Amino acid sequence: MQRPSGRKPEEMRSVRLTKHFTKHAEGSVLVEFGDTKVICTATVEETVPSFLRGKSQGWVTAEYGMLPRSTGTRMRREASAGKQGGRTQEIQRLIGRSLRAAVDLKKLGERSIYIDCDVIQADGGTRTASITGGFVAMAMAINGLLAEGLLKENPILHFVASVSVGVYEGEPVLDLDYLEDSSAHTDMNLVMDESGRFVEVQGTAEGVPYTMHELQAMLALGQAGISKLIDIQKAALNAEKSEA
Amino acid sequence: MQRPSGRKPEEMRSVRLTKHFTKHAEGSVLVEFGDTKVICTATVEETVPSFLRGKSQGWVTAEYGMLPRSTGTRMRREASAGKQGGRTQEIQRLIGRSLRAAVDLKKLGERSIYIDCDVIQADGGTRTASITGGFVAMAMAINGLLAEGLLKENPILHFVASVSVGVYEGEPVLDLDYLEDSSAHTDMNLVMDESGRFVEVQGTAEGVPYTMHELQAMLALGQAGISKLIDIQKAALNAEKSEA
Amino acid sequence: MQRPSGRKPEEMRSVRLTKHFTKHAEGSVLVEFGDTKVICTATVEETVPSFLRGKSQGWVTAEYGMLPRSTGTRMRREASAGKQGGRTQEIQRLIGRSLRAAVDLKKLGERSIYIDCDVIQADGGTRTASITGGFVAMAMAINGLLAEGLLKENPILHFVASVSVGVYEGEPVLDLDYLEDSSAHTDMNLVMDESGRFVEVQGTAEGVPYTMHELQAMLALGQAGISKLIDIQKAALNAEKSEA
Amino acid sequence: MQRPSGRKPEEMRSVRLTKHFTKHAEGSVLVEFGDTKVICTATVEETVPSFLRGKSQGWVTAEYGMLPRSTGTRMRREASAGKQGGRTQEIQRLIGRSLRAAVDLKKLGERSIYIDCDVIQADGGTRTASITGGFVAMAMAINGLLAEGLLKENPILHFVASVSVGVYEGEPVLDLDYLEDSSAHTDMNLVMDESGRFVEVQGTAEGVPYTMHELQAMLALGQAGISKLIDIQKAALNAEKSEA
Amino acid sequence: MQRPSGRKPEEMRSVRLTKHFTKHAEGSVLVEFGDTKVICTATVEETVPSFLRGKSQGWVTAEYGMLPRSTGTRMRREASAGKQGGRTQEIQRLIGRSLRAAVDLKKLGERSIYIDCDVIQADGGTRTASITGGFVAMAMAINGLLAEGLLKENPILHFVASVSVGVYEGEPVLDLDYLEDSSAHTDMNLVMDESGRFVEVQGTAEGVPYTMHELQAMLALGQAGISKLIDIQKAALNAEKSEA
Amino acid sequence: MQRPSGRKPEEMRSVRLTKHFTKHAEGSVLVEFGDTKVICTATVEETVPSFLRGKSQGWVTAEYGMLPRSTGTRMRREASAGKQGGRTQEIQRLIGRSLRAAVDLKKLGERSIYIDCDVIQADGGTRTASITGGFVAMAMAINGLLAEGLLKENPILHFVASVSVGVYEGEPVLDLDYLEDSSAHTDMNLVMDESGRFVEVQGTAEGVPYTMHELQAMLALGQAGISKLIDIQKAALNAEKSEA
Repeated sequence: MQRPSGRKPEEMRSVRLTKHFTKHAEGSVLVEFGDTKVICTATVEETVPSFLRGKSQGWVTAEYGMLPRSTGTRMRREASAGKQGGRTQEIQRLIGRSLRAAVDLKKLGERSIYIDCDVIQADGGTRTASITGGFVAMAMAINGLLAEGLLKENPILHFVASVSVGVYEGEPVLDLDYLEDSSAHTDMNLVMDESGRFVEVQGTAEGVPYTMHELQAMLALGQAGISKLIDIQKAALNAEKSEA
Repeated sequence: MQRPSGRKPEEMRSVRLTKHFTKHAEGSVLVEFGDTKVICTATVEETVPSFLRGKSQGWVTAEYGMLPRSTGTRMRREASAGKQGGRTQEIQRLIGRSLRAAVDLKKLGERSIYIDCDVIQADGGTRTASITGGFVAMAMAINGLLAEGLLKENPILHFVASVSVGVYEGEPVLDLDYLEDSSAHTDMNLVMDESGRFVEVQGTAEGVPYTMHELQAMLALGQAGISKLIDIQKAALNAEKSEA
Repeated sequence: MQRPSGRKPEEMRSVRLTKHFTKHAEGSVLVEFGDTKVICTATVEETVPSFLRGKSQGWVTAEYGMLPRSTGTRMRREASAGKQGGRTQEIQRLIGRSLRAAVDLKKLGERSIYIDCDVIQADGGTRTASITGGFVAMAMAINGLLAEGLLKENPILHFVASVSVGVYEGEPVLDLDYLEDSSAHTDMNLVMDESGRFVEVQGTAEGVPYTMHELQAMLALGQAGISKLIDIQKAALNAEKSEA
Repeated sequence: MQRPSGRKPEEMRSVRLTKHFTKHAEGSVLVEFGDTKVICTATVEETVPSFLRGKSQGWVTAEYGMLPRSTGTRMRREASAGKQGGRTQEIQRLIGRSLRAAVDLKKLGERSIYIDCDVIQADGGTRTASITGGFVAMAMAINGLLAEGLLKENPILHFVASVSVGVYEGEPVLDLDYLEDSSAHTDMNLVMDESGRFVEVQGTAEGVPYTMHELQAMLALGQAGISKLIDIQKAALNAEKSEA
Repeated sequence: MQRPSGRKPEEMRSVRLTKHFTKHAEGSVLVEFGDTKVICTATVEETVPSFLRGKSQGWVTAEYGMLPRSTGTRMRREASAGKQGGRTQEIQRLIGRSLRAAVDLKKLGERSIYIDCDVIQADGGTRTASITGGFVAMAMAINGLLAEGLLKENPILHFVASVSVGVYEGEPVLDLDYLEDSSAHTDMNLVMDESGRFVEVQGTAEGVPYTMHELQAMLALGQAGISKLIDIQKAALNAEKSEA
Repeated sequence: MQRPSGRKPEEMRSVRLTKHFTKHAEGSVLVEFGDTKVICTATVEETVPSFLRGKSQGWVTAEYGMLPRSTGTRMRREASAGKQGGRTQEIQRLIGRSLRAAVDLKKLGERSIYIDCDVIQADGGTRTASITGGFVAMAMAINGLLAEGLLKENPILHFVASVSVGVYEGEPVLDLDYLEDSSAHTDMNLVMDESGRFVEVQGTAEGVPYTMHELQAMLALGQAGISKLIDIQKAALNAEKSEA
């Protein structure tokens, strides 16, 4: 088996986190998994959705979008189509759940953090890049709240990152790019915390169902990959602190 | 640990499949997982979506809905709200993928099967019941095509069924009802085929992430449960044949 | 003239009211007019629409839907289409007006009753079945409010039921099924109270207009039919009380 | 009983039909029932809706709208709200059915007539004015097709007009204006042809249901009123011909 | 160069302002620029949009629509299409900005004026007619507020009117009708106040860009035209006062 | 008068054009006017909209969007709101018209170019940056068609660029940033070609109308600015060619 990119099965693409990519947001990062590029911003608002009012807790939610020509052929702009497609909703719900799992909403207080993940270039793995970068944007915004004294205690419970795994030409591989993704039999997105626990497992057989054996191999690959991603997140966030 | 229903951890609710529950559809079944009741119908149309035209293959897709008062408090009717919510879209995409994985779309020929899953009473596990019942409705429709001579060969590759598993009060349990689901730390939906392979794994930590150990226990419970569900599907479909 | 069903001109289909068909709603009934089957639920909410706030009165409103495959060919799901069609809106406005006419809204107090009528199988007359069954669901919910002491006095002014009449092959007939309905020249829906007064008369000539003579014959047939329907409603509701 | 307008129970408001009120449409009329003013236009298009293609017949359909400030308080513009309300849909379906009943669609050939009824000033009875004026606009358009030789034979089967009747302060009255309409117990819209047959009867009890006796009195009033309206329509259309 | 209408380059069409064209609105006028006819109404509401609450100022906004058959071929009704097109939004934003520029919003107090401009017949220049007539409707509404004592001081800063200019067959012309507009290389809409200052300049080259020389010629033509329009507005509004 | 940025009245911000900013589109550029950053892509599709079919000409159209947190406070995502606002539509119509004016649509052949302008960071002048960058993306796509031999002749008629001018604290200034824009009395967007002719002039008085004298000063400033922008466009596109 030869991956189209020449990578080894357990090899992730080059991952980069460029903080302060745009200037207005409380947290802002450009996340790159190889040629996949996503702008993640975190916005803090001092309100909560109506279903949480008066419950002494905060909220974290996410929205996801793709620029129409982030892909090989132009997609219809969702704003112009008048609605977000099912795939978009599925992804932004996943991002939101994953990042909420990283935060003690009670400690966040009655405020909301909106994570916006906008794909400017897609090459597979946009949702895993969004979660990984979105966590960093969220942490930047929370660091800001701590620095301003609006938060006394850090509400982050643990780091969270995400990577895809799959079965490509019969072999489990880590971090599928678009070429692999479109021909893989199985595509699984893992979200895990820094102690190797699972936040989300979403594995779909596109064609032939996968065996328990393949599942276990994918879980192992993903666990190793996420561990590296969390190291990269920590390095990026520490760099921030030393800058300050 | 005591489940609210008094069931044992590995015990499913009573499952019933009532075929021909409504009379117009090519396949029709009422599926009950305890108090969860879903009407599943399969409609055959002799066309395919435009992206498949001329490709000598068929299509299987699903739609999901809940009656406004299928739940403890009335939900807003999606037709009146003017759009399907994110949860609905997520679920119907899951049902569609799961059932497509059970069919050789080439053998189906240039026709589409629409699976409609409408929840008339909800008590947890509506998506797993929908997949399990939707498969039976689809099989009924395909049996009709075979009987009419419109299909020469059965395009069904293998049976597919679905069940939920979760961690309730620290212990892995099978087939969560609403009371368990709303307080479970982890909720996982499994879709598997008759040889125990995975079609979909979707596990979400609502709160504390779950460990590899818990994940393995849930997979084992689910595998056993789906095996039983496929027996029930087969019995129901065989009953049909003997009737004919 | 021979009706497709073999019924006599003044003969209704078999009518059944199955209370508690689903378990969550304050009132719930499956109404069957022959092969037409509608789930009617009544939901009580302790609020009123904004245009009634502070006016010391309640509200009754209705929503109507059809499962996509309740009919011979699959209809597009309105939630997926993004709006309710004109026919749906016309019917749910009719149901709402008819049931409001049965209630003293002042006596109901500042609360709302939502009647949901969802057709699971259609064979003509879904709107008349919905009104007839919707009344029973509403009465069940009101009986509940009386039993709980939330209402001191019964706000129901009189029973209300509905049936269709038409001119089929030149002859007035009662309670048209789908086959008759689709070839009838005239289709009229009557809503009446228990003393034979009219709540709604909606008669449409599909093709040849109808004469005053035919109109009078239809009104007479309908009056007799509704009288029987109200007997059936009363029997069903009394059965409830004796159960309790 | 004294009507607010001082009219006798059987007295209609002054009715005016101003043809060619706007210049672009194939048929165009301003219809006035007292202070109710509606612009009705008829547009001919040489196509039919897809469900009629190849069936050698035509189609007649209608749309209805109100200018936001046609009423005493401003209504939200439906185009801005993003949808037509239930009342609008109900009315435009009624207009469409009523005018279709006046035309032999086979003789019309494979073309469509769109009737647009736009209320510029409302004072009760906008739907009956729309039908009465819409018929004249349609007849003008059909006369144009005959004059151009595009139609060999007149497809109009009979004249159709509409008026409202109601029970106001206990007494049946003809052609309710807004003041009467908003306090009437019963409001009935009748659509009839020139030989006194019924095309539509739509009677709604707003409050107390009405008796068979009241119904008969309203039908008689309406029949007399419509007979006068058809005389007015004929005079207006004949004036056209003599002009030509 | 010969204009299709035979007008001289600097000659406007006949302009008419018919006040009280409809009876309900606080201000109401039919404005005609030749065959272009627009009903303009002004509605006063004693609230302001949420973004202005508590800011001790008022608001002026506008909505624009065209009857489906105001044009040579029928346009789709925007209410039925479910949204206002880009052209409609562009025009109603222009009308709103132009009329806001004529009013001291502080002096207006915490109330809103809605200007509705509905084109009943179009022959070019509907937006300029809407602004010119909309100003008169607004002034009528403000005169009403002054007469009732709800306003102590007139918030109108200056008169505002609008006209189009263009380059037709190489020559600058004033007030283009539809025939000219559809073949003009350049179409410019000017909104000016009574002292010849600019409120809006919107000039679009449809095809060949226009030179500085052409621009200056168009500005001069427009300035003269608007001066005449403001005379006509003043005459119309003075007539009102003398009537009173 | 001191501009907030310290710039001289006739001084533009630093303008940068980064070609190939994203990799999939036929033309792609990041355009920066100071802190305003817009990704412009050009997509070629070998079809034309239905209203142009069979007319032997092409089409150029544009869509515009802002990332939710491209601005100081988060804006609601239009895809999630379910429609594009009036401002968005106004801007994308302006971009489309401006770029169409630069192309001989006959020479383009029966194909369409879609220009997507997505603002990733806003600091005033997003529409003028979009037009200036959009032209470059379009030219890149057309160069590609020429290089592939799909076009024999360059359909570009002339370069087109855009800049804003305004009156800030009484003085005409070039290229307003957000701080200036939000307090300027007048804001004018100019689109011009390389020979100094006007494609679009859109000037709005926000508050006090502007005089003819101010208008002339703004036109002069803009003309000089656009001349520089076209030099920058040419340098960027020539760099491309030498790279090839």
